[in-house]
Amino acid sequence: MERRYNFNAGPSALPQEVLDHAQSELLSYQQLGMSIMEFSHRSKEYQKIHDGANELLRELLNIPDDYEVLFLQGGASLQFSMIPMNFLSEGQQGNYVITGSWAQKALKEAEKIGNTFIGSSSQADDFRSIPDLGTIKYSDQDAYVHLTSNNTIHGTQWKHFPKNDQSRFIADMSSDILSRSLPVDQFSLIYAGAQKNLGPAGVTVVILKKDMLKNIPDNLPTMLDYRTHVDKKSLYNTPPSFAIYMLSLVLQWTKNNGGIQAIEKLNAEKTNLLYDTIDGSKGFYNGTSEKQSRSSMNVTFRLPGKELEDLFLKEAEEEGFVGLKGHRSVGGCRASLYNAVPIESVHALCDFMHTFHHKHNI
Amino acid sequence: MERRYNFNAGPSALPQEVLDHAQSELLSYQQLGMSIMEFSHRSKEYQKIHDGANELLRELLNIPDDYEVLFLQGGASLQFSMIPMNFLSEGQQGNYVITGSWAQKALKEAEKIGNTFIGSSSQADDFRSIPDLGTIKYSDQDAYVHLTSNNTIHGTQWKHFPKNDQSRFIADMSSDILSRSLPVDQFSLIYAGAQKNLGPAGVTVVILKKDMLKNIPDNLPTMLDYRTHVDKKSLYNTPPSFAIYMLSLVLQWTKNNGGIQAIEKLNAEKTNLLYDTIDGSKGFYNGTSEKQSRSSMNVTFRLPGKELEDLFLKEAEEEGFVGLKGHRSVGGCRASLYNAVPIESVHALCDFMHTFHHKHNI
Ligand SMILES: Cc1ncc(COP(=O)(O)O)c(C=O)c1O
Ligand SMILES: Cc1ncc(COP(=O)(O)O)c(C=O)c1O
Ligand SMILES: [Mg+2]
Ligand SMILES: [Mg+2]
Ligand SMILES: [Mg+2]
Ligand SMILES: [Mg+2]
Repeated sequence: MERRYNFNAGPSALPQEVLDHAQSELLSYQQLGMSIMEFSHRSKEYQKIHDGANELLRELLNIPDDYEVLFLQGGASLQFSMIPMNFLSEGQQGNYVITGSWAQKALKEAEKIGNTFIGSSSQADDFRSIPDLGTIKYSDQDAYVHLTSNNTIHGTQWKHFPKNDQSRFIADMSSDILSRSLPVDQFSLIYAGAQKNLGPAGVTVVILKKDMLKNIPDNLPTMLDYRTHVDKKSLYNTPPSFAIYMLSLVLQWTKNNGGIQAIEKLNAEKTNLLYDTIDGSKGFYNGTSEKQSRSSMNVTFRLPGKELEDLFLKEAEEEGFVGLKGHRSVGGCRASLYNAVPIESVHALCDFMHTFHHKHNI
Repeated sequence: MERRYNFNAGPSALPQEVLDHAQSELLSYQQLGMSIMEFSHRSKEYQKIHDGANELLRELLNIPDDYEVLFLQGGASLQFSMIPMNFLSEGQQGNYVITGSWAQKALKEAEKIGNTFIGSSSQADDFRSIPDLGTIKYSDQDAYVHLTSNNTIHGTQWKHFPKNDQSRFIADMSSDILSRSLPVDQFSLIYAGAQKNLGPAGVTVVILKKDMLKNIPDNLPTMLDYRTHVDKKSLYNTPPSFAIYMLSLVLQWTKNNGGIQAIEKLNAEKTNLLYDTIDGSKGFYNGTSEKQSRSSMNVTFRLPGKELEDLFLKEAEEEGFVGLKGHRSVGGCRASLYNAVPIESVHALCDFMHTFHHKHNI
């Protein structure tokens, strides 16, 4: 069967080996005569998957022992609310660095809960860049400082992360977690919807420093209190067990393929191929983000004029390329190069872009 | 491959045809060269599944047009909080009918949000029964009246539902939705985690009367405001797309097998087989719930003495029966006979129970 060139922004490509494996045991997990979807979440078989995913993520990201790893539901969007509900106390402020639409949404949810502050914003720049670390404003009242490590829509990414002694940094890493080595210890909380580098939609990963659990207000809804999920090891209620199973397979695949170091190297190769094609096109293809802020995950670009752009997207689709349309809020084109996108897909895309360029040279 | 006799309480058995179908197209949904997990939730292919599941559920349950059908995350447990957050106003009370542990948990979440009232409780009875409809207390201050249609842990089920002109009834139907015909119009809201009769864990179904949307307080977290999901047709953020795909297959299977009427009839046959085995055992097997309150989904029973019970569970497991252990909070035995449990499994269980009884006649 011919697989397509999948550049979706999320849900997105999964490793073919992972899908093959899941398919082979879909009706009988480990020859046990039941689908993994049919096992109780209290069974020893499921428990092993649940714990295994936790341990693998710790190993791959080198997560220190004073951090908890949680598997939740509700997507990154529910984290936008859980974070201020748990950590934004009276008399404090949530400090948000605004680098794109997702950061804006996170801020909006915090505004409903408490005071907020914008430590930096690249909105004036149409979110084409990541702020210089030195320009971010901090305050004694910061409950935490929230940033979006990779801006899925705008195609920008933090290359370094801020660090100081008093701030608790929180990061939405939905679209670049597991794509590169990560100084976890610079963060108090990291969260990510799984549906880009981690697995299918339906599970959200939270990496949480234990000292964050100390000042959570009492009387939060049980499901929205991080302590519930820490205490019950993400088994307070029925977890999305199949999504966590798929996550465990993707993590195993990542490990089998050399772990973060190897993945990071391959991702750089993929990204360079595509940006070189863009930059070598003499302005036919135009990267939308500033060069030093370019994302290695979501490559955003435009063509000269809407007509040509539409034609590009149409012909690409006919050639088997999926997901190249930019987010409906910004238009243009976007190729998402998540971990599971094979380099062959990127070669094919670059070839197609060369051909299209020559055909429509203007 | 030999499938097991799966009596899990949830996650639980899925129809073999559904698993076969999902397996056959796991790498290439409708020959399109991508897994359904790899499609964007904004693609027309996924949209069709999403809408299709909605329409099928409407058709199967005969849901009136003035109701919304939502697909959410977080399980029934998050609904325990969303309901009072959205509907329990100052000066009102949430009226809870307490028929088991899940009802207690729902009540506990409401207590965090506002005033509550217990309109009836079978706790004194160890939750062995459902209250007579006539004994439930209502009040002018009731924001709503909450009940649990089937008590998964205790093995009891409402045979009829209360009805009056002023009350807004809300029901947790996690463990019996789609098992029998349902007077949807007697309820203002019905909710259910999918992992029993509807599909795998990871999606929660909410059936909501539109007039409930009028008095929701502003400034709720966006993800916890029912209006968000109504407005965006359960696509505000990334939905658990594979779980919803599986739900759509289970609904299609239900329809192919004659719909609710046929399912209800078959369920009654299955239930009768097992209760007859219990009642015909001269007290060797003891049903734990009152006869007129017995659940058609979760059949709870005990054996004389812990030793024999442990032996029963051990030998059953060796014979390929899964999930017969009662909930850890109550002990004993429980066989869950959800829609996807084939009658052959029930025959096999009854045979095993007869044999075990004769071997250990005391
Ligand atoms: C950076 C980022 N944050 C948050 C979200 C929202 O995630 P979810 O749909 O899981 O709520 C997305 C989705 O694409 C994202 O890219
Ligand atoms: C009747 C009932 N309500 C609520 C729940 C909790 O559901 P969830 O795990 O989806 O939160 C269950 C789980 O078994 C249940 O049986
Ligand atoms: Mg953005
Ligand atoms: Mg984004
Ligand atoms: Mg109960
Ligand atoms: Mg129960």
